[in-house]
Amino acid sequence: MVELPDKRTAFIDWYLAVVEAANLSDKRYGIKGMNVWTPYGFRARRNLDRVLVREIEATGSQGVEFPALIPATEFAKEKEHIKGFDAQVFWVTKGGATELDVPLVLRPTSETAMYPIFALWVRSHRDLPLNVYQIVNTFRYETKTTRPFVRVREIHFFEEHTCQLDEARATERVRSNLGAFRRMAASLALPYLAVRRPKWDTFPGADYTIAFDLPLDGVRTLQLGSVHHYRDNFSIPYGIRYEAPDGSTHAVHQTTFGLSERLLGAIVGAHGDQRGAVFPSEIAPYEVVIVPVVAGAGGTAVARAAEDVAEELRRAGRRVVLDDGDERPGAKYFRWELAGVPLRLEIGPRELEHGQLTSVDRLGRKASVARASAPADVARRLEELDAELVRRALDGLRSAIAPAARLEELTGSKQVRVLGWCGDEACGHEVERAIDGALLGTPEEPLPVPFAAPTSCIACGRTDGVRTALAAQPM
Amino acid sequence: MVELPDKRTAFIDWYLAVVEAANLSDKRYGIKGMNVWTPYGFRARRNLDRVLVREIEATGSQGVEFPALIPATEFAKEKEHIKGFDAQVFWVTKGGATELDVPLVLRPTSETAMYPIFALWVRSHRDLPLNVYQIVNTFRYETKTTRPFVRVREIHFFEEHTCQLDEARATERVRSNLGAFRRMAASLALPYLAVRRPKWDTFPGADYTIAFDLPLDGVRTLQLGSVHHYRDNFSIPYGIRYEAPDGSTHAVHQTTFGLSERLLGAIVGAHGDQRGAVFPSEIAPYEVVIVPVVAGAGGTAVARAAEDVAEELRRAGRRVVLDDGDERPGAKYFRWELAGVPLRLEIGPRELEHGQLTSVDRLGRKASVARASAPADVARRLEELDAELVRRALDGLRSAIAPAARLEELTGSKQVRVLGWCGDEACGHEVERAIDGALLGTPEEPLPVPFAAPTSCIACGRTDGVRTALAAQPM
Repeated sequence: MVELPDKRTAFIDWYLAVVEAANLSDKRYGIKGMNVWTPYGFRARRNLDRVLVREIEATGSQGVEFPALIPATEFAKEKEHIKGFDAQVFWVTKGGATELDVPLVLRPTSETAMYPIFALWVRSHRDLPLNVYQIVNTFRYETKTTRPFVRVREIHFFEEHTCQLDEARATERVRSNLGAFRRMAASLALPYLAVRRPKWDTFPGADYTIAFDLPLDGVRTLQLGSVHHYRDNFSIPYGIRYEAPDGSTHAVHQTTFGLSERLLGAIVGAHGDQRGAVFPSEIAPYEVVIVPVVAGAGGTAVARAAEDVAEELRRAGRRVVLDDGDERPGAKYFRWELAGVPLRLEIGPRELEHGQLTSVDRLGRKASVARASAPADVARRLEELDAELVRRALDGLRSAIAPAARLEELTGSKQVRVLGWCGDEACGHEVERAIDGALLGTPEEPLPVPFAAPTSCIACGRTDGVRTALAAQPM
Repeated sequence: MVELPDKRTAFIDWYLAVVEAANLSDKRYGIKGMNVWTPYGFRARRNLDRVLVREIEATGSQGVEFPALIPATEFAKEKEHIKGFDAQVFWVTKGGATELDVPLVLRPTSETAMYPIFALWVRSHRDLPLNVYQIVNTFRYETKTTRPFVRVREIHFFEEHTCQLDEARATERVRSNLGAFRRMAASLALPYLAVRRPKWDTFPGADYTIAFDLPLDGVRTLQLGSVHHYRDNFSIPYGIRYEAPDGSTHAVHQTTFGLSERLLGAIVGAHGDQRGAVFPSEIAPYEVVIVPVVAGAGGTAVARAAEDVAEELRRAGRRVVLDDGDERPGAKYFRWELAGVPLRLEIGPRELEHGQLTSVDRLGRKASVARASAPADVARRLEELDAELVRRALDGLRSAIAPAARLEELTGSKQVRVLGWCGDEACGHEVERAIDGALLGTPEEPLPVPFAAPTSCIACGRTDGVRTALAAQPM
C-alpha cells in the first residue's frame, strides 16, 4: 500500500506521488521532462480534449494541423516573439547524414508555422473571421525542474489562432474565448481567476495577455491557460492582409488562446486528497468502478449481476470498469480511490437479494441504489459529486485570497494578495520582490470574494490612477 | 471552374489536382513534404481516426502516447532496425544554444521509444498481453518526390505495439490485426490484397511482414498498411522479459500494426472520378450538403425549411453542411461534388409544396425523399452509396489482377500479376527486374478472383516448392 505525503505540508511530494500511484504518467523515459502517457492517463487526456474541442467548436472554430517543424527563417520574422522563445527551442539540424541548409525549429507554439499560410488563406474580408485551433504537442527545452503535466518538455497543447477584421472584433474574440474557458473549466470543476498580465509578463509579441490562475490551497498559483490579443503585431511582418469591400487593404487583427495538459495537473492538484486523485466525471478515465463482493455460494450470481450492471451502464454511455479480479474488495477500493474514480458500485449477496447496489462516491458518501434505476441514479450521483467538487474548490479559492495594504504583509505570503497598484513597472517589481513571486496583474472579472477597492499604491503610496492588482507565488 | 486531368491517362496529375481542388491538404508550407491539414481535410482525418480507434479498441488495445524524441543511444539498440532507418531520420542536436550530449531522433516509428518502457511495464505473465496503440505524427527525411497523404515527411501515423507470451500468441495477434484491418477497410469501402512480403522486403527488425496492397486501376499499387511479427528480435536487446508461473523468465514475442494518412490518399485514389473526390460516408467530412434552391417569393420559406432539415439531420447524428451562400445552385453542386460529399439534398419551392426533398448522391443517382422521413431515407441512401463504392472498387481490384506464365509478360505490365515462384531470392529479383517493380509476396488470404495455382517458377522453371506470388509496380 502507498502512503501519500501530506498534501498541505508537502504539496509537491504529494503531487508527484499521486501522479505515480494513480499511474497517470510514467516519467522513467530516457529524456528529462518527456513523459509517457500511460493507458490510464491517456484516457483522462482524451476526455479533456473532448471537452476543449466541444466548447471551442461551439464558438465557430475549426480543427486544423500545421507541421511540427518550422524553418528558422520563418521563426525569426517577429522580433519580440523570437526573443521570447529563442533560448528554449529544440533545433533540427540534420536529415539522415545531411546537414540541413536551413535549420528547423520544433514548434514551441505555432504562430510562425501558421501565419505564412494564413497570409495565403486570407485574401478578402469574406475570408474573415478565420478561427482555427489545433491540439498538438509542442516542445520547449526547459531547463528548470520538470513536473508531470505542469512543466514538461513535450507539451500536449491546445492553441486557437484567429484573424479578425479589426481591433474591436479581435477584442470580441478575446471575450468569446473567456466565455469558452469558463465553460471548459466548469466541466473540470475548476474555479480560477482571470487576470490581465502586466506589460512585462505579456506573451512575446502580444499586445496584452489575459491568463487564468488557480491558487492551489496555501501553496502556489498555477497558470491554467491564456488568451492573447496580438493586434497587427504578427499580421504586418507575415503579410496577413485582406481587401475590404471598398478595395482598400488592411492587416488583420489576431488573437490566440492556449491551454495544455497542465489542466490535468490542476485537476490532480485542486481536487486530490490524502487518498489520491479525484476526477470530476467528465474527465475521469472511468466514471464508475463496479466491484463484485463475492462470498460463498452466491458467487456466480453476483459476478453475473455485476457484468449485467456494467453492460447496462455502458449502454447508457457511461465509462465503466468492472474489477472482477481476485484481490480482496478492500484492496480494490484502495486502488480505485487512489486512481480517482468518481463512483464505486459494490454488489454482493445482500445487494443481489434486495435488487440494490451500494454506491460510494470518491468523497466517501454512501448510498443505496436500486438496480432497476441504476443508470439514472448513477447520473445523479455523479452530478452531485461534480457539484460538491466545485463547492470545495470554490471555498479553497476564496480562502486563498486576502487583501494586503503594506509591502511587509507580502513577505512569505502563500496567498493571492489583493493590493493597490499605480501601474508603474518599478512599483510592480517592488511588489514582486516583496512577495518573492509575481504581480499576476489586474482582475479581468469580478473576484469570487468582494474586496474594498484599494485607494493607494502599495509600493509608492500614490492615490491617482490606482487599480486593484493581484500578487502571488506562481508555480 | 477546375478542369481535372484525366484519371486514367494522367493519374498523378489527377490525384494532385483533386487533393488541391477539394482543399484536403495545403502543400504550400515552407518545408517540402510537410503539409497543412486544412479544416476540410482535418475533418476527414478525424473520421478516419475514429474508425481506426473503434476497431482496434474492440480487439482490446489501449491508447497511449510516447515521446516524439528518442535518444540516439536507444535508437541504436536493434541492429537491423537502425540500418533500415538511419538514412531517413531527422536529428535534433541543439536545445536553445546548447549542443546536446546525446543527439535525439525525431521518431520515424516508435519501437525504440516504447520498448525500454515496455521492459519496465512487463514483469510477470500477468502483465501480458500488453496491447497498446498510439496515433501520432512520425517523421522521415524523405528524399523521393513527396505527394500529399501518400509520401510525406511528417506522417499522421497509427501504430499498435503488442507483447505476447509466446510465438503462437503473437501469431494470433497478427490474425486479430488482419481481422481489424478488414473491418477498418470495410468502413473505407476499400478492398485490398493481404500479402506476406518476401524476406528482403520485411520491416527492419521483423521476422515477417504482411502488407495490404491496393492496386489503383491500371496505375500502381499502394501499400495501405502492414502487420509485423517481431518474434523476440526486439525484446531480447530491450530486455522485455516476464516471469512465468513456474518462476522461469522468458523474452516476450511482439507484433506491430501500422497505418497512416495514406488511407485518405487511397480513398481519393480509389473512389475519385472526373468530377473530384468521392468519400464513403464514414470518412466524409460532411455526409450531406443541403442546398436551398431559392427563387422568387418563396425564398424565406425555402431557407427556413432547409435550416429545419439540417437541424433534424444533425440531431439524428449526421454531419451536415448547409450551403445557403449566394452563388447559383449549379456552382454549389460543382464545388461539393469536387469535395466528395456523398449526398446532396436540394430543396426549392416545388419540393416545399410537396413535402419533399430531391436527393442526388455523389454518383449522380437522383431520388425524391419525403421530408417526414428524411433521417431514415438519408441513412438508407448513404448505405446504398457505400455499397456501390465497395462494388465498384472490388470490380476495379478484380480487373487489376491477371496471371502471368512467362517473365516477358511482366514487361510494361500495369497489373498485379499472379505467378509461380520457387521462393529463391534470386528468382524474386529476376521477377522484379522484369516487371520493373516489386515481388509483393505471397497472398495471405484468398484472392478476390480464383486463379489456377501456378505449377512452376516463372523465373527458373522449377516445379518443387512452388508457391503463388504477386508482382506489381508499387507507388
